[in-house]
Amino acid sequence: MTKPLKIGIAGLGTVGGGTLKILNEHAELLAARTGRPIVVSAISAKDRKKNRGVDISKIRWFENPLDMAADADIDVVVELIGGADGIAKTLVEKALENGKSVVTANKALIAHHGVTLAKIAEKNNKILAFEAAVAGGIPIIKALRDGLAANQFKRVMGILNGTCNYILTSMAETKRSFEEVLKEAQKLGYAEAEPSFDVDGIDTAHKLAILTSLAYGSMPAIDKIMVEGIRHISLSDITFAAELGYVIKLLGIAAQTPQGIEQRVHPCLVKSHSPLGTVSGVYNAIFIEGDAVGNMFFEGRGAGAGPTASSVVADIMDIARGVNYKPFTLPVAELQQPNFSGIDNLRASYYLRLSVSDRPGVLAEVTAIFRQENISLQSFLQPSHHAGDVAQLVLTTHETGEAAMQRAIKTISALESIKEPPTMIRIENL
Amino acid sequence: MTKPLKIGIAGLGTVGGGTLKILNEHAELLAARTGRPIVVSAISAKDRKKNRGVDISKIRWFENPLDMAADADIDVVVELIGGADGIAKTLVEKALENGKSVVTANKALIAHHGVTLAKIAEKNNKILAFEAAVAGGIPIIKALRDGLAANQFKRVMGILNGTCNYILTSMAETKRSFEEVLKEAQKLGYAEAEPSFDVDGIDTAHKLAILTSLAYGSMPAIDKIMVEGIRHISLSDITFAAELGYVIKLLGIAAQTPQGIEQRVHPCLVKSHSPLGTVSGVYNAIFIEGDAVGNMFFEGRGAGAGPTASSVVADIMDIARGVNYKPFTLPVAELQQPNFSGIDNLRASYYLRLSVSDRPGVLAEVTAIFRQENISLQSFLQPSHHAGDVAQLVLTTHETGEAAMQRAIKTISALESIKEPPTMIRIENL
Repeated sequence: MTKPLKIGIAGLGTVGGGTLKILNEHAELLAARTGRPIVVSAISAKDRKKNRGVDISKIRWFENPLDMAADADIDVVVELIGGADGIAKTLVEKALENGKSVVTANKALIAHHGVTLAKIAEKNNKILAFEAAVAGGIPIIKALRDGLAANQFKRVMGILNGTCNYILTSMAETKRSFEEVLKEAQKLGYAEAEPSFDVDGIDTAHKLAILTSLAYGSMPAIDKIMVEGIRHISLSDITFAAELGYVIKLLGIAAQTPQGIEQRVHPCLVKSHSPLGTVSGVYNAIFIEGDAVGNMFFEGRGAGAGPTASSVVADIMDIARGVNYKPFTLPVAELQQPNFSGIDNLRASYYLRLSVSDRPGVLAEVTAIFRQENISLQSFLQPSHHAGDVAQLVLTTHETGEAAMQRAIKTISALESIKEPPTMIRIENL
Repeated sequence: MTKPLKIGIAGLGTVGGGTLKILNEHAELLAARTGRPIVVSAISAKDRKKNRGVDISKIRWFENPLDMAADADIDVVVELIGGADGIAKTLVEKALENGKSVVTANKALIAHHGVTLAKIAEKNNKILAFEAAVAGGIPIIKALRDGLAANQFKRVMGILNGTCNYILTSMAETKRSFEEVLKEAQKLGYAEAEPSFDVDGIDTAHKLAILTSLAYGSMPAIDKIMVEGIRHISLSDITFAAELGYVIKLLGIAAQTPQGIEQRVHPCLVKSHSPLGTVSGVYNAIFIEGDAVGNMFFEGRGAGAGPTASSVVADIMDIARGVNYKPFTLPVAELQQPNFSGIDNLRASYYLRLSVSDRPGVLAEVTAIFRQENISLQSFLQPSHHAGDVAQLVLTTHETGEAAMQRAIKTISALESIKEPPTMIRIENL
């Protein structure tokens, strides 16, 4: 058997602990599957004494993770500290520069600095692997890079943030408001005290930027993503969507369009019985349309110690087997900076909820505006039960242009009979 | 750029044609993604003149595919002839012996002779790849070997035969009998004139043997699979199952049990809204339970030119990148011949449909037999509408032992009031 692959783990939080556990409990299995023992040679974390269920007293301890980047007895640095900048970035840079391969679960780091880091990895002929950065346990990076690599991709779209999916699922199941469910999610540890990263779609955007890069051979372009979160989704929207046969999901969507590559993160109405529509709770899922393979669907746990560590260890095993790939599949020099199509070019169907004065004639005013913009309506709901003199009006459109829809919404918003800003949600057909 | 990888394709049927098309149309994309041009250097097929939509006049032609195995200008032989024995087997053996890597979509070959072939591949330090042999376009072989390789697998189960899934889905949707739908499937080209391979579960068993081997590090053991096909599934069963909230699917199931590894292929009742329950038509799907990753689900097209060729080309790209893995992950010398648990050890819930005399007292007779065997009933249906003096009685049980269930069925079958052999279908909970 060849000599052991020596690992240095930086960061022993949830994922670091999970990684240590797998490497420890499955040591024999992993060695058999890769043909090479995988040994944890060093660890660096905040608190050496915290009980992590694994005896780490015999493993070398570094107070400063950066010292691991220079350690002669480490082949692979596993970065599980997190954060786009700061010590995580420095650690990965130094490790690659010192001829070590790097495995990371850090989506912010890869989305923002992936190209810089990939250059260093290439120059030193080392692996920079980040399967765990997107969709936790789902091996979607490897699928795009290996299993589905023969395809040109028409669309890659997914539920990439478990916190948002938990909140939206729970709102629907327990008929509660966004605020109430968010509070509960925070208590349960599914959402952070400062939830913006998740509920405003930023985390999804980081992951989408990585998927787009792999699917389209482009540099990750987080600044070219239209991002909308889920704070404005009300229980009413979820209820009306259900009446129309839909559920509401926060999706990250990348697609090849005639105007360029489209990247957008926003809540969508998707058919309740479509693959993405059935994904509930903290699960993640990805739907891919390839020119050869057709439709392909992956579903699994998007976070947590086990699933994320499953992907971290899979990357380590790849390195143990001596894989040879570029971080973004293509060499950095060949990565494109393509045209990105703006949201104005989008063609979609739309859901629109209006809070209107409860008097005759409002619907006529609204439909006249749609007619002006050449938008044709597909369905219409006007529930009889409502509070006071404000009624709800729910409309869905056939496929139309985003720009026309935005103009229509602006004109509608200015009507005297409109009592609150309209809620618009795009409909995504799978 | 490094020198081209030279491919010889043997067999230009549906999958061969699809492979040629991808290699032709995506030549630039594939070279960019692998860092190496992939060139079709030679072809061998039955009919040189058949129009396949790709100009093959400039590609070297071999009347005898075996000559490709010895050709100095070929790096990889792609075997798409089919069949467990005969020329396909000889071709793969010779190619590996002559130091060429082999890509094949041939599940029968791998299920029956995979170990023999893997030995030759290992000895010659070449790749034997068969992603396309299981579940068409779904990269499930790579997922078990790479993406989920950090896991011990509790269960691997799937809808692995598109023909059976098409037939079962179509029976449910169009309320027709097995025979009628089979005839239609044959006309549409979804089923062979001799359908036994598909509808009797043999094809599913081949694929399951391969999945079991990869998941559990064992030699493929097709003779250790309990196989039951779908010929005995009637429209009544599908209708009753639907009333109980289930659909009927032919599943291949591998699981780790205290008695050893369980391998079985048979129709199952699965919850209509479970992941496998929603898979319709010719789609394939695989549900995996790993100790770290938890539940993981893959769905995609299981057959056809595009999807299967997508997997064939993915394997070719792996070789172009210089991957290094053993065909069944472990070296042949380390592959186990584990205990396989027989069907008698199974614990499951059961669906039972009885055709009984339409007179009082029959249910009491039947339930007395269940009580004798300590089997507890979960639900019971006795539709009022029936033909003549034969009534249908549908029962489902709580979890019980297969042996007890089989004894109960034997005793029930002998009752004078039982008019036809009972239909028993196992219930699989996801």
